Amino acid sequence: MEPIKPYKKEFDYSYALGAFPTMELLTKRPESAEAVYVHSSFTDRARVEEVCGRHGIPVREGDKLIARLSDKENVYVIGQFRKFRDELSEDQPHLMLVNPSNMGNLGTILRTCLAFGIHDIAVITPAADHFNPKVVRASMGAVFSLRIACFSDFEEYRKRYARADRKLYAFMLTAKKQLTAENCPKPKKYTLIFGNEATGLPEAYADYAEAIIIPQSPEVDSLNLTIAVGIGAYLFRKTEV
Amino acid sequence: MEPIKPYKKEFDYSYALGAFPTMELLTKRPESAEAVYVHSSFTDRARVEEVCGRHGIPVREGDKLIARLSDKENVYVIGQFRKFRDELSEDQPHLMLVNPSNMGNLGTILRTCLAFGIHDIAVITPAADHFNPKVVRASMGAVFSLRIACFSDFEEYRKRYARADRKLYAFMLTAKKQLTAENCPKPKKYTLIFGNEATGLPEAYADYAEAIIIPQSPEVDSLNLTIAVGIGAYLFRKTEV
Repeated sequence: MEPIKPYKKEFDYSYALGAFPTMELLTKRPESAEAVYVHSSFTDRARVEEVCGRHGIPVREGDKLIARLSDKENVYVIGQFRKFRDELSEDQPHLMLVNPSNMGNLGTILRTCLAFGIHDIAVITPAADHFNPKVVRASMGAVFSLRIACFSDFEEYRKRYARADRKLYAFMLTAKKQLTAENCPKPKKYTLIFGNEATGLPEAYADYAEAIIIPQSPEVDSLNLTIAVGIGAYLFRKTEV
Repeated sequence: MEPIKPYKKEFDYSYALGAFPTMELLTKRPESAEAVYVHSSFTDRARVEEVCGRHGIPVREGDKLIARLSDKENVYVIGQFRKFRDELSEDQPHLMLVNPSNMGNLGTILRTCLAFGIHDIAVITPAADHFNPKVVRASMGAVFSLRIACFSDFEEYRKRYARADRKLYAFMLTAKKQLTAENCPKPKKYTLIFGNEATGLPEAYADYAEAIIIPQSPEVDSLNLTIAVGIGAYLFRKTEV
């Protein structure tokens, strides 16, 4: 048994904090689960042991690890998992995040993508670490149901995935075209691109993607990133139903 | 000059942390501003002094207060303001939050309402304190552009505002009716009602309001509250443009 360590980005494993994200790990990515740590006061241990037993995942005493990893939040179960790497699907819609910096936002965005059936996420680095336990928790374990791939720049993504039949849309405050429910494009295959929380997308993205804006009052400087992603993902997926 | 104190809910004043929220205070609610505290390393002091001078608001040295109030974030300006109370407009759309508990969420929701032109917010208590500096900051100062009123229960709101010509919509996971861009109702006057982050809305709300749900994948247990509000506010306002 390995020594118990707080998470660091360079580790090849991470933690799902809480029963809900851990159950998502065990049901969606059991092959990546390395161990589950259970607090002595956890009341639903039988269910965790049943699932872990089926996949040969060890269940261990978790009081010490939980005390070290969970700060103030109520956590009774921790799932330790090996990090995984995915290829994006060439046939599915993608959501691209360019330099997302806030871990809570990133987790909320992943959960929102899953809610609207977008399973393929491209992240342009530098970016918040999507395996950080804070992101995993904010995603409510959605990270285990998605394919997430990191790229060092847009060019790397473009060469690999931007085929002629994939339409790219860049959400930019400088865009002329307003995205409404009535005029929302209905391409078969698309990538929705969102910039950093503070700085948005560089203008150069307008050279490769159609620039669009969610109409918003001049009384605010911009929408919160998670809200913009939520509305974009909702509108584009909706039109496909 | 009063002694400098960290915020408490029972105070009759609060703080806007940061230059952007403070400028919102000074331009939207100058009559509520009591003082502005400026850090010695702040580079845009002239602009703050100009606006404060026009309204007779004192500008004070802020290094000590900023050190006490701003934990780790970069804050160079703090606006101290007297709390204010509003009546909601009877003619405008309302957004109702029933027992919102997370301060960051509440701030993001206020900012989102302002972005989509919903200026009247009803809060059913118990609820996060919308004057807490964390909420003010998360709202990016939107709190100074909105009318926000608290009610001890739904009945109190209903008696005061729920006239026959106001349509009420309750966002509930148990609703049968799915809200889509195509079928979004277009009432002249409406109230959008959202429940607590963890528990949602009590079923009883379906007796007074039309229950609706934002279509979402069974792969998630629910949308994040801020995302649901963002999509609801966007769709309802949009249809009015």
